Amino acid sequence: MTLNKQWLLASRPSGAPTADNFRLVETPVPVAGEGEVVVRNHFMSLDPYMRGRMDDAKSYAQPQMLDQVMQGGTVGEVIESRSPLLKVGDKVRGGLGWQQFGKADARQFVKISGEGIPLSAYLGVLGMPGVTAWMGLTQIIEPKAGETVVVSAASGAVGGVVGQLAKARGCHAVGIAGGAMKCDIVTREFGFDACVDYKADDFRARFKDAVPKGVDGLFENVGGTVMDTVLQRMNAFGRVAVCGLISGYNGDGAPMKEFRSVLINRLKVQGFIVSERMDLWPQALTELEGMVRSGQLKYRETVAQGIESAPQAFIGLLKGENVGKQVVKLI
Amino acid sequence: MTLNKQWLLASRPSGAPTADNFRLVETPVPVAGEGEVVVRNHFMSLDPYMRGRMDDAKSYAQPQMLDQVMQGGTVGEVIESRSPLLKVGDKVRGGLGWQQFGKADARQFVKISGEGIPLSAYLGVLGMPGVTAWMGLTQIIEPKAGETVVVSAASGAVGGVVGQLAKARGCHAVGIAGGAMKCDIVTREFGFDACVDYKADDFRARFKDAVPKGVDGLFENVGGTVMDTVLQRMNAFGRVAVCGLISGYNGDGAPMKEFRSVLINRLKVQGFIVSERMDLWPQALTELEGMVRSGQLKYRETVAQGIESAPQAFIGLLKGENVGKQVVKLI
Repeated sequence: MTLNKQWLLASRPSGAPTADNFRLVETPVPVAGEGEVVVRNHFMSLDPYMRGRMDDAKSYAQPQMLDQVMQGGTVGEVIESRSPLLKVGDKVRGGLGWQQFGKADARQFVKISGEGIPLSAYLGVLGMPGVTAWMGLTQIIEPKAGETVVVSAASGAVGGVVGQLAKARGCHAVGIAGGAMKCDIVTREFGFDACVDYKADDFRARFKDAVPKGVDGLFENVGGTVMDTVLQRMNAFGRVAVCGLISGYNGDGAPMKEFRSVLINRLKVQGFIVSERMDLWPQALTELEGMVRSGQLKYRETVAQGIESAPQAFIGLLKGENVGKQVVKLI
Repeated sequence: MTLNKQWLLASRPSGAPTADNFRLVETPVPVAGEGEVVVRNHFMSLDPYMRGRMDDAKSYAQPQMLDQVMQGGTVGEVIESRSPLLKVGDKVRGGLGWQQFGKADARQFVKISGEGIPLSAYLGVLGMPGVTAWMGLTQIIEPKAGETVVVSAASGAVGGVVGQLAKARGCHAVGIAGGAMKCDIVTREFGFDACVDYKADDFRARFKDAVPKGVDGLFENVGGTVMDTVLQRMNAFGRVAVCGLISGYNGDGAPMKEFRSVLINRLKVQGFIVSERMDLWPQALTELEGMVRSGQLKYRETVAQGIESAPQAFIGLLKGENVGKQVVKLI
């Protein structure tokens, strides 16, 4: 009998998560009920937002329940079907969480038909992170050609896409990332005009040099002092899409000192969640898939091997140890 | 020969302004050139935004020049005209600054025709502060009936109008002000549903009690810890109109600790300046004047007597010593 390895939330972290917060269990592989399918996951997604759900605090999503399977996006293959919508062998994207197998109503999966594109891409550039990048850029920043667009965590799954979409719209794209290696990828591989290392002693001066015309659009993934530095360079009527504030996820985060820029520069600052505008996903994915197929849109993945590696990979993700999309390869 | 008393900016303040930053001079009353009028000011306006212009720093307006007349709004009477647009005796609103007399092109004045309304009201409820209240509320907060709208500095020239306009739209209006006296005016006279004293030890708890359904719209005049307290109670998709951040005008201000609310609650936060949408002034003033004439819109003024009193009245304004619109009566 095949068993299903699952990671449960064992306890809530105080500060940075540790391995003790997770518990690995084995349960029988589920059986499909009427209308359901059973999927064997090939890849599972690790994302910064999961840290927020580990707290028992008010947020945009319900907290992750204790002693339940960690939630998250997955891609895999249907191994049992009791629905006419999907058949055995179909590749699907779903949200089965940190486990090797899972079942759900067939309507909760999206069938993946993309030939020639790796399955894992549907968790990154052609999944939630890619659509997040598209949505914040097109719906909040609304960049015009010639404007300067800045994105923090620029080598990450979301950030890398933001800058490339901005470049495709004729913008000057500037990334912020941690360390010379990541900055190198952002400029040489993703094609940003510049990338500034926030760990450098002279970060503030370097950033100023990188945005000689100021900043019209900011796609914010980090918060804290990194965001403050960008806020000081915003142009009048700039737009800030607030996608994430990872610098504060393991604690209170640094308070913001430059909020007055919102008043001085009449900024529009808006938080958003990609799942609230499902109506826009098809339009986003059409553009993203076209750019991936033409080779215009580059992406990176950091792949952890085996379900056992998930907690350490997640802990590392929160420290910025990944480049591009962090996934766990299950088979 | 009649002389014109004028207050010049003598030096830039570091921190709170002092009397030494201003210098009183006397010059001849100006003479109108072609197309110009000379106006004797009856009232001059004192506003928090003037503090920002005293610094030599980037902001939305040019800094106030040293050794020049302090800029600001005025209402008065035309005493000489070389323009067909205005005649001697006309009452006008303009921006002649801290002086008893001034001249400018006639097109830079708005003729005041309102019978039965005191001239000073055109510096407050029917002037820049009133239109500011209208614009932030209607263009950014866009309140719907039944929503909760909060405004800080609620007894001030802008804040008092915000809450009354919100009430007129069927909202639950909650003010924040400093001290029991001001809160009393906000509720009993302006008709807000509640007003919370930010100086009270249990401000946070009291504020929570005042907004049992959370906050949908925030009209922010203060910033710092007052704003943080409101941000903690925002509902999903709340709107924040950033009109002023007076708590930081005399220094760096308290850093913001609750910015994550923007992400968690998908807030829209937007700074604005009333002078950038002159096209909306007629619509705003039509509503405001109608409500003043019907008695629905109440307002207060704090009147300093004589041009000599201007610096002290302005210094007091920044400490919250006024209630309602702060003006200086010149004759």
